[in-house]
Amino acid sequence: MRRLKATISYDGTNFAGYQVQPNQRTVQEEIEKVLTRMHKSKETIHVTASGRTDARVHALGQVLHFDTTLTIPVDRYVTALNVQLPHDIRFLKIEEVAEDFHARYSVHGKQYRYIWSCEKILNPFRRYYTTATNGHKPDIARMKEAAQYIIGTHDFSCFCAANTGVKDKVRTVEALDFEWHGEELHMIIRGNGFLYNMVRIIAGTLWEVGISKREPAEIEQIVASMNRKTAGKTAAPQGLYLEKVHYPN
Amino acid sequence: MRRLKATISYDGTNFAGYQVQPNQRTVQEEIEKVLTRMHKSKETIHVTASGRTDARVHALGQVLHFDTTLTIPVDRYVTALNVQLPHDIRFLKIEEVAEDFHARYSVHGKQYRYIWSCEKILNPFRRYYTTATNGHKPDIARMKEAAQYIIGTHDFSCFCAANTGVKDKVRTVEALDFEWHGEELHMIIRGNGFLYNMVRIIAGTLWEVGISKREPAEIEQIVASMNRKTAGKTAAPQGLYLEKVHYPN
Repeated sequence: MRRLKATISYDGTNFAGYQVQPNQRTVQEEIEKVLTRMHKSKETIHVTASGRTDARVHALGQVLHFDTTLTIPVDRYVTALNVQLPHDIRFLKIEEVAEDFHARYSVHGKQYRYIWSCEKILNPFRRYYTTATNGHKPDIARMKEAAQYIIGTHDFSCFCAANTGVKDKVRTVEALDFEWHGEELHMIIRGNGFLYNMVRIIAGTLWEVGISKREPAEIEQIVASMNRKTAGKTAAPQGLYLEKVHYPN
Repeated sequence: MRRLKATISYDGTNFAGYQVQPNQRTVQEEIEKVLTRMHKSKETIHVTASGRTDARVHALGQVLHFDTTLTIPVDRYVTALNVQLPHDIRFLKIEEVAEDFHARYSVHGKQYRYIWSCEKILNPFRRYYTTATNGHKPDIARMKEAAQYIIGTHDFSCFCAANTGVKDKVRTVEALDFEWHGEELHMIIRGNGFLYNMVRIIAGTLWEVGISKREPAEIEQIVASMNRKTAGKTAAPQGLYLEKVHYPN
């Protein structure tokens, strides 16, 4: 038995999310189906991801681990999986890891990217891959200023969806920045862990700062309130990408 | 009654092509449905395009014309249409034109783009928007050399799908070039008119030159043969984009 770490990318458009759910098409189920078939196993070969992603959320570098009895070299393992998987999931890399490596518990940090399309007329090719702003162009200087109140270690209850079982809501946001790529605005956020919907609530709240619905300094009070109701709307899922998952070397 | 010229873009993935066909989802039908509703008309308001595009082929700048009794200013006309249209079709611009303007008969020339993804592992986000080469990287110097035999005025029977009613197969290819955009290869072709499947057959044939299945000089004989069977395969539809339609000023 060897433990493998896999880096995968998926287009979240046609998935009900990463995690297996009855009667829904999910990333995990598609992968487990192929792995189980490859192992000619009667029991499902399970994979464990760094965390789940919601319906329509994309991944550029999701990480998962699984245990295998197959002795195929890792490069050929990648090819064998990709040949059988649907085209909206791709294995990018497989590495052999120590048996105590755990895709979820060993996580050191994650990086997400959120993309808004600020064109007046939404490019039809970007409809599933960005959040349309109907031509609104925010002031990113305001958004960068507001971001300073988020960077650091805080109780982020204000940016956590109500329906969560997590008790300790203290997390560290290590970096939070904005970049224009043509008429698309990217928010890049890196931290040691993220609460349920945290990136999308931060995106939605800082968006409101960018279009002057809120002042940058308000963010300090929102964080201090530890109350979800003080923050802005949850931004739409299709603009969100899980970009990288970091593990200790 | 005024005649309007419209420039539109569409993601061809979920269409059976541009032109109306019974029991199929087509670009033309979606547009005519919305226009007819806007005019509160019992009879269908018809639109005429510069030409059809096949299933899964995309458009960045398709052009069409139609006649309207509505007096809405052109900018608001664009918005009114986009609000009602599905998100895979967008009107980019509407201009008022002379009543003898005809989107098909007035065409002066067209430009198409064909895109191959040459990454070893196909980016899942590009699966509907490029043609995957499974990591094959052609030599574009060979493709550019072969292109010289196509540029100019020729009978292009060799690059025309068999099932066509068109008799005069003489066309002028004004420009044909290749560019790398990262790991994607773009072919850009401009001409005064294109036969059925002509761009895709040229793409498929020059691809074979690029991967050394054919010599560049063979293209001269293929053109001279006026025989479809001498040319290469028809390249897949999802890599093709109708980019611009030119009209005399």
